[in-house]
Amino acid sequence: MHDAGVMTASADRARLESLGEFITVAHGNGGRLTRELVETVFAHHFGGALDINLDAVPLSIPNGEIVVTTDGFIVEPLVFPGGTIGSLAVNGTVNDLAVAGATPFYLTLSAFIEEGLEIATLDALIGDAAAAARASGVGLVAGDTKVVRRGEGGGLYLGMTGVGVRARGVQLAPHHVRSGDRLLVSGTVGDHGAAVLLAREQFGLRGQLRSDCASVVPIAQALLAIDGLRFMRDPTRGGLATVAHDIVRASGFGVRLVEASIPVSEPVSGVCEILGFDPLMLACEGRVLSVVSAQSAKAALTAMRDLGCSQAAIVGTVVDEPLVALVTEVGERIVEELEHDPLPRIC
Amino acid sequence: MHDAGVMTASADRARLESLGEFITVAHGNGGRLTRELVETVFAHHFGGALDINLDAVPLSIPNGEIVVTTDGFIVEPLVFPGGTIGSLAVNGTVNDLAVAGATPFYLTLSAFIEEGLEIATLDALIGDAAAAARASGVGLVAGDTKVVRRGEGGGLYLGMTGVGVRARGVQLAPHHVRSGDRLLVSGTVGDHGAAVLLAREQFGLRGQLRSDCASVVPIAQALLAIDGLRFMRDPTRGGLATVAHDIVRASGFGVRLVEASIPVSEPVSGVCEILGFDPLMLACEGRVLSVVSAQSAKAALTAMRDLGCSQAAIVGTVVDEPLVALVTEVGERIVEELEHDPLPRIC
Repeated sequence: MHDAGVMTASADRARLESLGEFITVAHGNGGRLTRELVETVFAHHFGGALDINLDAVPLSIPNGEIVVTTDGFIVEPLVFPGGTIGSLAVNGTVNDLAVAGATPFYLTLSAFIEEGLEIATLDALIGDAAAAARASGVGLVAGDTKVVRRGEGGGLYLGMTGVGVRARGVQLAPHHVRSGDRLLVSGTVGDHGAAVLLAREQFGLRGQLRSDCASVVPIAQALLAIDGLRFMRDPTRGGLATVAHDIVRASGFGVRLVEASIPVSEPVSGVCEILGFDPLMLACEGRVLSVVSAQSAKAALTAMRDLGCSQAAIVGTVVDEPLVALVTEVGERIVEELEHDPLPRIC
Repeated sequence: MHDAGVMTASADRARLESLGEFITVAHGNGGRLTRELVETVFAHHFGGALDINLDAVPLSIPNGEIVVTTDGFIVEPLVFPGGTIGSLAVNGTVNDLAVAGATPFYLTLSAFIEEGLEIATLDALIGDAAAAARASGVGLVAGDTKVVRRGEGGGLYLGMTGVGVRARGVQLAPHHVRSGDRLLVSGTVGDHGAAVLLAREQFGLRGQLRSDCASVVPIAQALLAIDGLRFMRDPTRGGLATVAHDIVRASGFGVRLVEASIPVSEPVSGVCEILGFDPLMLACEGRVLSVVSAQSAKAALTAMRDLGCSQAAIVGTVVDEPLVALVTEVGERIVEELEHDPLPRIC
């Protein structure tokens, strides 16, 4: 039917009508309006596993080790090219579980909503979260909503916790890396950070940037099958450089990155040149950084390419001297830890 | 040593010195300053189970059913008589697990910190959270910190998730109540809501009110041993009246409360009279509402009194007509569901 979209939009309007047009403080008081908000928006989108009558819900867990992660999301703007705070919160949480070697199963969501947010906007964002959850096969099992007064909450903040299960015996940690190991990334770096920056009106720039916001579950699971996998991490806030420093701090070894081998898209390097940012410090939200033994590096690269990660690359080596170094065309420089370069509300 | 307090304060100052005096946006960028904030404040207080180098952590779980809960905390002011946002967040989360019949084991914390918050204030609040966690025997296993710009975050919001374990076969739910069952509360109602309201300068009132903010784990575990226990809930946002409506909605039965038997402290009823609030709608943060069979009501009451809950009381009965009614000195009135009586940022 060619007007299915129109019909859906009108059905959405009818569904949301009883809530009014904007979030009010009374939507957060725990009474009838809170219940209607939760039923009409949150339960509507997440359905299934979410029982809004329970304050604490039982989880059915398959055999294995239970793994948990938590993250807060404050991205601004709430909608950016390639994603929204909804898809970002789900993917960011699912990805933390995936790179820990776990299969994600459950999510819980704590929403801090600002008075005055448009109900239709909230509904679209929670719809995005639900779609991302379905795509990764995870269910939202518990949630909470709070409303804060106008001017106090930045539109919407999401606190998300994920629970997954990992096969017993999986040992992945930054202190497992050894001199000679290789570092790989699954695609171009810095896309999310650059896209969100550019989406802010203050920069007055428009471009072809899109966030890489996506689930990395398939990539992480392919890498898990590689013998010689030491460690995986999704290089979010603080970017590739920050993960490299985490490795150095945990292992006592160093990391030498080769600039020419690090995939950076044309628009991202353009923006970085104009605005003076370093793509190594910009957040990714759909990439995996992995460390594998030298012998397995090719196999890991092939596994990622087979999944369609055409930009996946071997980008560096673990070395003895405990520093993060970058080999450039003009020589080697030290990559310092990110300090006063805040990029607030990037994720 | 009579100056131990002074020495502790000076040790705290020395510990916090490297962070500066106030939270800056750079404390949230994921780099060195974020790491120092997490190490110096969060890992310092929670120590133990918290490995700040892991984005996702494994949980060791004893036999039983795994139960999860999540809640957001936005209380204002951050410090109030009887508690702080730190102790409130831990107790609120632990209590949701306890009244579900579970033993709380693990917590995760997502902190949204406003630029400009005093570091010493943040440290004291996280210290309160850690003390409350220790008191309930739970460990913080994962956390995340985000910093939002000045004016955007209301000082501090906390998103907290709790994981507990429940013996298989425990069946507690509002739809298990039956006509004739009794409702009990473990102590006076409305203390938290009234104390937080009064702590706000806008009311210009001062009194002897203290929040009831506390762990209900011992009470819930004592009630679990009572044959004929149908359901427990901690009557937080929306108070006793909101839980009564939840019971009616889930069960199709009604609830008849007897005003004279509902324990309300002198200062709470005084404040409610002056400001026009209904104590049945005010939040508690350390009370249990339970529904038990008529035959077991006395045993449940005795179990609570034996734990020192001197104000515990049988406050109502489950009836056939699906309404919430309140028997007063002058007759019976219907208790409506809480609507536009927002009391924002009460928990």
